[in-house]
Amino acid sequence: MNNSGEILEHILQNDIPSPEPLTFSFLAPNLKGLDGANAILARNRSAFETETQRIVSQAERLEQKISAAGVPGGPFKPALEIAVFAAATESFSQKNLNCSIATSLERFSQVIQAAKEEDLRVRAYISVVLGCPFEGHDVNPHRVAEIATDLLEMGADEIALGDTTGMGTAPRTKELLNCLRSAGILNEDVAMHFHDTYGQALVNTAVALEHGIRTFDSSVGGLGGCPYSPGASGNVATEDMVYFLESLGMDTGVDLDAVADIGAWITGEVGKPHDSNVGKAVLAARRRSEQEGRRVSI
Amino acid sequence: MNNSGEILEHILQNDIPSPEPLTFSFLAPNLKGLDGANAILARNRSAFETETQRIVSQAERLEQKISAAGVPGGPFKPALEIAVFAAATESFSQKNLNCSIATSLERFSQVIQAAKEEDLRVRAYISVVLGCPFEGHDVNPHRVAEIATDLLEMGADEIALGDTTGMGTAPRTKELLNCLRSAGILNEDVAMHFHDTYGQALVNTAVALEHGIRTFDSSVGGLGGCPYSPGASGNVATEDMVYFLESLGMDTGVDLDAVADIGAWITGEVGKPHDSNVGKAVLAARRRSEQEGRRVSI
Repeated sequence: MNNSGEILEHILQNDIPSPEPLTFSFLAPNLKGLDGANAILARNRSAFETETQRIVSQAERLEQKISAAGVPGGPFKPALEIAVFAAATESFSQKNLNCSIATSLERFSQVIQAAKEEDLRVRAYISVVLGCPFEGHDVNPHRVAEIATDLLEMGADEIALGDTTGMGTAPRTKELLNCLRSAGILNEDVAMHFHDTYGQALVNTAVALEHGIRTFDSSVGGLGGCPYSPGASGNVATEDMVYFLESLGMDTGVDLDAVADIGAWITGEVGKPHDSNVGKAVLAARRRSEQEGRRVSI
Repeated sequence: MNNSGEILEHILQNDIPSPEPLTFSFLAPNLKGLDGANAILARNRSAFETETQRIVSQAERLEQKISAAGVPGGPFKPALEIAVFAAATESFSQKNLNCSIATSLERFSQVIQAAKEEDLRVRAYISVVLGCPFEGHDVNPHRVAEIATDLLEMGADEIALGDTTGMGTAPRTKELLNCLRSAGILNEDVAMHFHDTYGQALVNTAVALEHGIRTFDSSVGGLGGCPYSPGASGNVATEDMVYFLESLGMDTGVDLDAVADIGAWITGEVGKPHDSNVGKAVLAARRRSEQEGRRVSI
């Protein structure tokens, strides 16, 4: 198996401490990929939650909170989900998956069906929904809605709309989401996956929030990116996303100070630029107040 | 005189070519500062436009455009404006100006009156309107409206609201602008001056646009910053601002490609990090398409 399999096995065989339940996403581009995941899962059956177990334990946690019995202690079992990656344009599908959109959807249909038979949650990504490195800005939102509908009908639990190139703008984000709504797709089945390449990630997040979307992808320190956009910045940073959502009065449950530390550390470890404005500002503000503390104490 | 005077004299003595009329802002914290500017202006009386001349030539240009006579050729004379900097909090006023807000307003009143007597436009900045490094987030928007009203009554032509620390959030930007509206201040007398320290500059710009504000400050390559926020990022980059406004269908009249080049060049010259996502993405996209062009030609 590849790195993804090694990471999955590592997560399942070690109790990764977390105050909140985590979901690990496993990319399975075809049935062979899913077989690889299933082999690992079979060896570690008791170490993770299936989709039904996840829903049951989520309901239990909610009940305990409501009945003021407190949140259950101890590490949570991670949940598992299988991820498939479709593309919104034929060119990107060919370059990324080496097949047409139609062929990719046939493969994903098999993967999704097999994953659901194992009671695994499935997240279906659609890449380049707001701009394609090969076809430009004008990705057809109706085509995205069509692909999303197909994937949901195949049994996918969630559609993640990827602005892979960061070319998305506020008006086109709104147009895309209106198009999905018209196609009968529910907001709760949609997640947004913005890249900050052109600095529009938070603006587009605001548009999606106003539309009623509540699930957003991000990566600590702004890690990641698009292999077709060398030199351009990557996923929107978790630090920036958390700061923005909290500024709107939303409770993310994320410790911004701790994530800022992780962002500085991990970008150093992997030798990438630290691409979070908020992360850098939070750390600078902390250093400043420490220095002032020292100055006062002299 | 200081650097500001040298720059002013350089601009007035050299025909700086520009397809659009430019305004040079001269910081005059007190009457002595204004006297310095006036001495330079007296030596170069024919090289710039006073406020009345600027309004007249602007009207002429508009008339020529409407009558389809074309835009007049040749370099425009730069316009001049005098800038004063007030602060929204007593702590920042003391640290930055070494006096109370009330004392600073008395001084600015003299500067504004003297500048208007010379027929010079006056721009009055108010710093830290959405967060103060010494007093925190909760800057009183009513106090900002009060200071803005005072400055306008003194004769200031425009109020620039500075989010010096970048601590501004969407809800507090909206609250501040509502407060100014309630105080009877017109949108056309207000400019927003956002810093992208916490990545909120474009989000806050969107809020201000929705409110009806149409004047926004920015700096090429994201140069600038706040001396009280070492390590944090500076003014919102012109590249990011232009890309955002154009994405909303607005015509900025700015050549994004050319500004991206300037941003990369000038940040290199002054040895500062290139802090524009858009600038970097535009240059990376250009390099990529050049490489692809070469690849195709092989």
